[in-house]
Amino acid sequence: MTFSTIAYEIEDGIARICLNRPDKMNAMNNAMRDDILAALDRAIGDDAVRVILFHGAGRMYCAGADLSAGAATFDYDGAGGTGPVRQDGTIDYAHPEVRDGAGLITLKIFDAPKPVIAAVHGAAVGVGSTMLAAMDARFAADDTRFGFVFTRRGIVPEGASTWFLTRIVGLPTALDWCLSGRVFPASEALERGFVRSLHPADEVLDAALDYARDLAAQTAPVSVALTRQMLWKMAGAAHPMEAHKLDSRGVYARGRMADAREGVSSFLEKRDAAFTDRVSADMPDYYPWWDEPPYD
Amino acid sequence: MTFSTIAYEIEDGIARICLNRPDKMNAMNNAMRDDILAALDRAIGDDAVRVILFHGAGRMYCAGADLSAGAATFDYDGAGGTGPVRQDGTIDYAHPEVRDGAGLITLKIFDAPKPVIAAVHGAAVGVGSTMLAAMDARFAADDTRFGFVFTRRGIVPEGASTWFLTRIVGLPTALDWCLSGRVFPASEALERGFVRSLHPADEVLDAALDYARDLAAQTAPVSVALTRQMLWKMAGAAHPMEAHKLDSRGVYARGRMADAREGVSSFLEKRDAAFTDRVSADMPDYYPWWDEPPYD
Amino acid sequence: MTFSTIAYEIEDGIARICLNRPDKMNAMNNAMRDDILAALDRAIGDDAVRVILFHGAGRMYCAGADLSAGAATFDYDGAGGTGPVRQDGTIDYAHPEVRDGAGLITLKIFDAPKPVIAAVHGAAVGVGSTMLAAMDARFAADDTRFGFVFTRRGIVPEGASTWFLTRIVGLPTALDWCLSGRVFPASEALERGFVRSLHPADEVLDAALDYARDLAAQTAPVSVALTRQMLWKMAGAAHPMEAHKLDSRGVYARGRMADAREGVSSFLEKRDAAFTDRVSADMPDYYPWWDEPPYD
Repeated sequence: MTFSTIAYEIEDGIARICLNRPDKMNAMNNAMRDDILAALDRAIGDDAVRVILFHGAGRMYCAGADLSAGAATFDYDGAGGTGPVRQDGTIDYAHPEVRDGAGLITLKIFDAPKPVIAAVHGAAVGVGSTMLAAMDARFAADDTRFGFVFTRRGIVPEGASTWFLTRIVGLPTALDWCLSGRVFPASEALERGFVRSLHPADEVLDAALDYARDLAAQTAPVSVALTRQMLWKMAGAAHPMEAHKLDSRGVYARGRMADAREGVSSFLEKRDAAFTDRVSADMPDYYPWWDEPPYD
Repeated sequence: MTFSTIAYEIEDGIARICLNRPDKMNAMNNAMRDDILAALDRAIGDDAVRVILFHGAGRMYCAGADLSAGAATFDYDGAGGTGPVRQDGTIDYAHPEVRDGAGLITLKIFDAPKPVIAAVHGAAVGVGSTMLAAMDARFAADDTRFGFVFTRRGIVPEGASTWFLTRIVGLPTALDWCLSGRVFPASEALERGFVRSLHPADEVLDAALDYARDLAAQTAPVSVALTRQMLWKMAGAAHPMEAHKLDSRGVYARGRMADAREGVSSFLEKRDAAFTDRVSADMPDYYPWWDEPPYD
Repeated sequence: MTFSTIAYEIEDGIARICLNRPDKMNAMNNAMRDDILAALDRAIGDDAVRVILFHGAGRMYCAGADLSAGAATFDYDGAGGTGPVRQDGTIDYAHPEVRDGAGLITLKIFDAPKPVIAAVHGAAVGVGSTMLAAMDARFAADDTRFGFVFTRRGIVPEGASTWFLTRIVGLPTALDWCLSGRVFPASEALERGFVRSLHPADEVLDAALDYARDLAAQTAPVSVALTRQMLWKMAGAAHPMEAHKLDSRGVYARGRMADAREGVSSFLEKRDAAFTDRVSADMPDYYPWWDEPPYD
């Protein structure tokens, strides 16, 4: 499998997904959406991959949706022909073509068994910002400009970002950014907790790679997969009993596996752990514990 | 329609609701509750209004509930007569008179299609603080004192503030403020993220007006309405699929409307946008997508 | 009732639960779990107790689970005999022995009608950290090291901490700490809002006691109980209508009781309040309003 809009490579257990339409400022189109979805599937299924890292080629991370169709950019039916718009002009919202492509990406990240992080620079605007909200950590170059600009384009935030962003930066900041649609600097993204740290543009990728390597070091892949899913899924759970059920199962099932023995032994022997359970084959039988809610 | 306890005026697209019982420190009584509810309805229904701004006349924003009934202030049945208390002394909690008036205000703000902000000074105590928790942004004079004082009055927090406040400042701060019931200074409100910024008392209203004008500038009213509802409603949603459904519909429906064409065109032409879709008439057919849960 | 693994004493209305296996670094075993559960029940049922305070004897607060069983520490079935593992090797997750002991503690704290706080020093690792996430406030000695180390032991976070921690420090920090499993210093716990303040090791207990005394001062015990439950339960609620129902009932029911009269009267008379309603006997008839969700 080769990709036309992204580059994909693995190094030190980190799968790098590089948005790679630099002459288009890495603007998102349907081909890039499909490439990203396929690259995520590949990284998720590959036990050699511990962390997934997004970055961008050229002057910026991502300028947003590809606006080359001009004023009709977001008029998908006008552009496509026989789509979800009925004869009487009403919209069939259950039609699959209505589904937002950015949301397909962020929902796949939401269900991923591996940490997903990003190193951004230049600009991350529109979908360039919303896709980041579903990730586990974000690193930014000092010069990065962000923007949830949808109210200024006459549409609405996508990528399920109203759910994700409220949980990453809290409601007051999410309201401020998304209602105003203003572009804001990296310093504000840092201050509000959207990014972990700022770096010179030529060092931000290394900073993210270092974080990914540290995150993977001495951790058990299956434990990381379960822990990541527990945290993201519990962020929307009504009652801690849901977490109690999950971690009771998790400690019990994992406690009988090779990794738990290695984890305790290596700690008592003051040596590095060498975990052997694999995400592809050794997840406990209760995983995944969720069914994706239907899109309807 | 005229108001006896508040002043209502519109300037630059901003509806100002001024609590106006300065000789009573703007203490909340039933008349003020009803005036606020009516003023909110008026502002919501008026396309000339882009942002709703609360402030107060006189020495302070709001000192809390009107305590002129003394020790029996919160004994509504004793005060009223034939209310929700049954012959056997038990309470019929489904009786409409049990409903907390502050909650009627905050739930109306929760469903509002326009941003609601506040400029406060002097003191915002009790309901003066809780009503703020349901708003999109808060500005404060340096001298403002806040207090969720209910545990010190022998009652409980109202205005649905336990839901709103945990989402505005997070659980640790909400617990600290509401359990102790202590009065705290503006500096602490700033540090914990309850207010956006502090100002000299004679400048705080202008600061809030500036923010409102910036927020309205170049944004599409219908997009702001949808975005505001998506953020507040998703703050309590269990799964990002709920957001994915909403933003898929939103981008699709809005993408075919005049505002989306104007939004993209104005951006590509590097000029200010002139949006024409109206909140009163042009909301997409799926809005509102929620039914208010019953009070029972 | 006496305890073998903890010390329990009451002073100034504060029940101190001191983890007391200093030669084992206060590592958690089943005896300590049972002692903590019993001590919580005692404090909850005693009207003389206003606040519950956890601390530790010896060099540290709690080093985590007792690892004296070595590599088989978390293999409960191997250790116990005829447990939840079926003949065919699959696990019966509904079996009561699967339930995580730390979760029994944090769920009891979650339902407690009194604030629960902690003063920690030295180290709070594993269950030493997760049990803190369910509390109302945390104070730490400068030298304290924290760690949600589960991914490094080959298991998963317990104590329902994925639910609690995301609400105490937010998702980005919870992801960072729990995915990496790294040990971090008190300064980072302060910066991320996990602890309220840092102190010299010999002053942290006094700082927490001072906070507890202030929290109890002039507050009505029944109001504190209701407010604590409203905040924690609303942190997971889908819609503010749930809070509106609770606080409507709370203000109405409490408004007719002695505490509300005393609360208003003492305020108007500018004197300290003397509240008389008791948690043991005077909770409103709608309390508790929840049923504990089943473990299954």
